[in-house]
Amino acid sequence: MAERFISDRNLKFLLYDVFDVESLLRYPRYSDHSREVFDMVIDTAMKMGKDLFKPVVSEMDRNGPAYVGGEVKVHPAVRTIMREAGLGGWIGATFSYEDGGQQLPEMVGMTVPTAIFSAANYSAAVYHGLTAGAAGLIATFGDQAMKDVYLPKMLSGEWQGTMALTEPQAGSSLSDIAAMATAAPQGYYNIKGQKIFISAGDHDGVDNVVHLALARVKDAPAGVKGISLFIIPKKRICEDGSLEPNDVNCAGVYHKLGYRGAPITQLAFGENEDCRGWLVGEANQGLAYMFQMMNGARIDVGLGASCIASAAYYASYEYALERPQGRRLSSKNPLDPQVAIIDHPDIKRMLLFQKAVVEGSLSLLMQCSRYADMEKVTQGATREDYNLLLELLTPVAKSYPAEMGILSCSQGLQILGGYGYCDEFPLEQYYRDVRIHPIHEGTTGIQALDLLGRKMTMKKGRAGRLYLEEVRRVIREAGEDAQLRPLAQALDKALGLLEKVTAHLTALGDGGKTELFLADATLYLEFFGIIAVAWQWLMQAAAARKALAGAVSETDGPFYAGKIFTCRYFFGYELPKIEGLAQRLLDSDGLTIAMQAEYFG
Amino acid sequence: MAERFISDRNLKFLLYDVFDVESLLRYPRYSDHSREVFDMVIDTAMKMGKDLFKPVVSEMDRNGPAYVGGEVKVHPAVRTIMREAGLGGWIGATFSYEDGGQQLPEMVGMTVPTAIFSAANYSAAVYHGLTAGAAGLIATFGDQAMKDVYLPKMLSGEWQGTMALTEPQAGSSLSDIAAMATAAPQGYYNIKGQKIFISAGDHDGVDNVVHLALARVKDAPAGVKGISLFIIPKKRICEDGSLEPNDVNCAGVYHKLGYRGAPITQLAFGENEDCRGWLVGEANQGLAYMFQMMNGARIDVGLGASCIASAAYYASYEYALERPQGRRLSSKNPLDPQVAIIDHPDIKRMLLFQKAVVEGSLSLLMQCSRYADMEKVTQGATREDYNLLLELLTPVAKSYPAEMGILSCSQGLQILGGYGYCDEFPLEQYYRDVRIHPIHEGTTGIQALDLLGRKMTMKKGRAGRLYLEEVRRVIREAGEDAQLRPLAQALDKALGLLEKVTAHLTALGDGGKTELFLADATLYLEFFGIIAVAWQWLMQAAAARKALAGAVSETDGPFYAGKIFTCRYFFGYELPKIEGLAQRLLDSDGLTIAMQAEYFG
Repeated sequence: MAERFISDRNLKFLLYDVFDVESLLRYPRYSDHSREVFDMVIDTAMKMGKDLFKPVVSEMDRNGPAYVGGEVKVHPAVRTIMREAGLGGWIGATFSYEDGGQQLPEMVGMTVPTAIFSAANYSAAVYHGLTAGAAGLIATFGDQAMKDVYLPKMLSGEWQGTMALTEPQAGSSLSDIAAMATAAPQGYYNIKGQKIFISAGDHDGVDNVVHLALARVKDAPAGVKGISLFIIPKKRICEDGSLEPNDVNCAGVYHKLGYRGAPITQLAFGENEDCRGWLVGEANQGLAYMFQMMNGARIDVGLGASCIASAAYYASYEYALERPQGRRLSSKNPLDPQVAIIDHPDIKRMLLFQKAVVEGSLSLLMQCSRYADMEKVTQGATREDYNLLLELLTPVAKSYPAEMGILSCSQGLQILGGYGYCDEFPLEQYYRDVRIHPIHEGTTGIQALDLLGRKMTMKKGRAGRLYLEEVRRVIREAGEDAQLRPLAQALDKALGLLEKVTAHLTALGDGGKTELFLADATLYLEFFGIIAVAWQWLMQAAAARKALAGAVSETDGPFYAGKIFTCRYFFGYELPKIEGLAQRLLDSDGLTIAMQAEYFG
Repeated sequence: MAERFISDRNLKFLLYDVFDVESLLRYPRYSDHSREVFDMVIDTAMKMGKDLFKPVVSEMDRNGPAYVGGEVKVHPAVRTIMREAGLGGWIGATFSYEDGGQQLPEMVGMTVPTAIFSAANYSAAVYHGLTAGAAGLIATFGDQAMKDVYLPKMLSGEWQGTMALTEPQAGSSLSDIAAMATAAPQGYYNIKGQKIFISAGDHDGVDNVVHLALARVKDAPAGVKGISLFIIPKKRICEDGSLEPNDVNCAGVYHKLGYRGAPITQLAFGENEDCRGWLVGEANQGLAYMFQMMNGARIDVGLGASCIASAAYYASYEYALERPQGRRLSSKNPLDPQVAIIDHPDIKRMLLFQKAVVEGSLSLLMQCSRYADMEKVTQGATREDYNLLLELLTPVAKSYPAEMGILSCSQGLQILGGYGYCDEFPLEQYYRDVRIHPIHEGTTGIQALDLLGRKMTMKKGRAGRLYLEEVRRVIREAGEDAQLRPLAQALDKALGLLEKVTAHLTALGDGGKTELFLADATLYLEFFGIIAVAWQWLMQAAAARKALAGAVSETDGPFYAGKIFTCRYFFGYELPKIEGLAQRLLDSDGLTIAMQAEYFG
């Protein structure tokens, strides 16, 4: 039961048919690769997903991390997975050759394996994923000595990497970070502070943990302008290569609703005045540096949510195919045999919703990876444009999959009825696991402020204009196909509404009405996200139509038909939701500003 | 932390200001009572909620029922609660005096205590609630001998009552029920069959369990026309009053996502050919009888969902008041002190959503109770009209709170950020508990078919017309208040859309296009539910405006202001969602009918 968790066929469709990953091969960075290499990456990841990650997904949930004697014990599979991820080159897959990587495109080396592993077992996939993010920070901003010490051990999966931002008094508000770094004459800094909610912050599946942590150098300016980035290892590296404790203590693990296969920890740095950290790059630039990892982590969160939703989708699809219950709506004869529930339109609607969310989100995330890849191989203004597009879409690609992933897993659970609520079936775990995603790496509210308050206004709104051009190109192309023309027109109309709403809101901001401008930012993010995913569905439908025009195999026919139906579903059932959202967003009456705390009582 | 779970102030507002429960006192059935009695009921229930139910809510979740040696062990509090519920008269509160009850109105005797106990501890509240429902069936359809045997023990909380419908091959499809009843010469029937998902189907908190079960008399017609209702006790009652086993065996309990304080069981009747059942009323009329209990249970489910959401609302409200984080959107100075998160418009929006769902749902459920009360005290055509209104609104009052309760608890969890995801805080339990409600007592899909396929068309659409009249009366009255007029106009417009959509869909049904008519019934239910709750909010706002025109105490001022703000929230943020739904519902393109199972692969 519930064998499938993700479709490699769909990943190949996105890579080759929608996003033409082969076009990257012409750039020197990727010229060593080929479609054969990409296929091999996908096939190997699928095999690892099936053989290594999936078999322990329920076990890791039921036997979560234990905090024993100041240390965190995790499932033994974690050590195996970390080492396999290292040996197989998965941690450094997108790193450049000189940093020990394989120089694969993000689409192939990051998005594909992260998707597959996350769908197979989300908790198990975060350990090496976080390590790749932390190592990436060192590769980009660290000096050669840091790279030499940390990268080999991290890329091999022997050492865990983390991002350590959150503090008890500074959750969403990074400007209140208080961990303190005092320069020592030896070149390092003495660190003192507490961090909370640190994923994989301590465990026995690795030999060391390398925290990429934010702290304040003594006398630094207040707020985000005074935050620096440090490497703070759990065990520091002696000159002879041996490890010694670095006064990094794990104070406990959180007991969580889901995502139980990975520990979220509380950490204390320097309780005994003997914790050393090494400054990465320049002082007071830490937040800017950290955004590289944070943006990557946000994409990973979107991907994780989409892929938990993918596993939930296949589990409910398999159930719906096999479960007999009831008769066709048009049948009143109780002696007719029961039909499989997938024959009920309402069940198909629920499955279409799941498919629309899962594959629409994956497509949006692949789109982001494509921009990241293009950023790596282009220069100057072109490069900056790709960066702007990626920056703009990151909060959307984090939040739409996270928020809709919850609803998607919930629909999957609903398809199973009472069984969905019971732990004999996998749905209830997916439902618990996916609930973390609108929270970690910046809540949906924070993403919304980022999108509307920052990304839509930076560079005089250039990111937004570039985005509109991107969507309009797809509208133009799809509009040439008579069958897709009504959908292209609907998306064009939606884009008009997006412009109208955006103009209305940014005018409030420009007029100094900051609170009114941003009060409903979360709804704006939702509104923006639906349109962005409609764009992705139109791209997918156009690619499917193109493929159907050629020779099509027996299995490809239903695959492409499914793409076109799901695109129609999205435009018929999901896109209309923007109407109500626009109605609200255009009515800036300040209700939530005027509401008083005591009125809730 | 998280002390409050429901507002008795709000319950009194609904009873006295909105639904004028005192107007019932003029009817003989209720003439023994008074406002003082009603107040005492509320106050006593609040005290029981605080002292008896709430203290074990987390404990009952963590130490769920255990299946040991063929029997189910539950938390010891269950026995205490059952006995207290019996001794306090809570189980028979709405029963007539001759059945051993207190003849309280449903609004006071059922809705209020069920709401309070469910908000305090949903799992703990279902035991006696189910017993009341089962006893109610016996009171209405049983003969005097049955009443004499069962009612005293059930109303005293010594015996548990259940409803036993679902079978492995017949979940949502009751026409496939196969449990078999063979008449024995002694007057009883020999029963053989299996039941699954039976809440409180076996446990050690009572001395006996009385199943109100559906089964087929041998040679009965196929389908729902051949279903009969039986009393099947776990232990049968000997002539001397002692109890002997009745070959009812519990085969296990389900391990569930939430709602863990109550066992859901698998039962086997007659494995050893010695299970006796007693026919209630006439053979083959069982489903019609059972609908009394089922409708009551559906209202209880809606109430349970609203009240779990209520507890979640107060927990997140208390947190938001106390948690400092970030600064006002208009402040850029990191040296400004942090504000409590309730000062952020986005948090207030989330709380308003919760409040709108919780109090809007409660109001709709109280409206249903009012119709039930009026049905009891009126006759003839008037009585039938009240019955039709109650029948029409039951699927809505079950599903809107269930579906929106999930989203509401989810927003509550989100307000707590990472803490919401951890089990130190109560939100994650509420989030798990509330997920059962769109499933049990008929899934949302089943409720939707009931609303559109049955309730809107029965008696030539009379229920729908009566409902429109009810809503229009509120629109007229609220429209006389200049401040509420725009809202009244918005609701009137929404009602127009409801009529348009309903006409479009029923025309399809009348034209024999049954599948097309019902394919999107779930969306119709959602659409209908939003408008119904807007109606309830307008009633509440009108009552608040009326109260504000008189002398208002210092605490009442903010209370009424909160009502008006939340009504405005509902009309500003929730009601616009009908636009997108209507767009879809008017576009009957048959997409989900044409979609093929293999396209999902």
